[in-house]
Amino acid sequence: MANRLSDAEITTAVAELTGWKLDGKFIVKKYRFREFLKGVAFVNEIAALSEEKNHHPFIAIDYKMVTLRLTSWNAGGLTDLDVALAKNYDTIYEKM
Amino acid sequence: MANRLSDAEITTAVAELTGWKLDGKFIVKKYRFREFLKGVAFVNEIAALSEEKNHHPFIAIDYKMVTLRLTSWNAGGLTDLDVALAKNYDTIYEKM
Repeated sequence: MANRLSDAEITTAVAELTGWKLDGKFIVKKYRFREFLKGVAFVNEIAALSEEKNHHPFIAIDYKMVTLRLTSWNAGGLTDLDVALAKNYDTIYEKM
Repeated sequence: MANRLSDAEITTAVAELTGWKLDGKFIVKKYRFREFLKGVAFVNEIAALSEEKNHHPFIAIDYKMVTLRLTSWNAGGLTDLDVALAKNYDTIYEKM
């Protein structure tokens, strides 16, 4: 199990991410797509990775916008795993 | 474009649906799945139907729970189309 990050570590980590914002125990990002079904395709890739890592973000699809919200429930807050997955999600988005 | 339903029509329609609740201008239902990826498969079917009908619900995936939220933006509230789609979503869920 990953260790929970300190407030200082979280601040540094979020500053290094692109477009992610801290919201309580979560980090959140909104991704925009040209078409609704492109957003759904993105969600499928995120879902496959989530299942592989056994770490599932909250996913919201609002027409052409997909919002991802990450935290580590078992650690009671954000961990390195959340930060690593946020970067992985961004890479998936950039490839689409 | 479908016509907006009256309050009385909405009350009757929601009473005839299973598990759907009225929430302001929306009807909302939470669907539960045995596995995360079953919920994602359901979302894919909902997405294909939404694109075909050009009527997109708000979709939220919270691990094994999928929440669908429907309204007709162009009519300013609920229409027959929302009620018809709610029934279609239930049929898709029952077949899974």
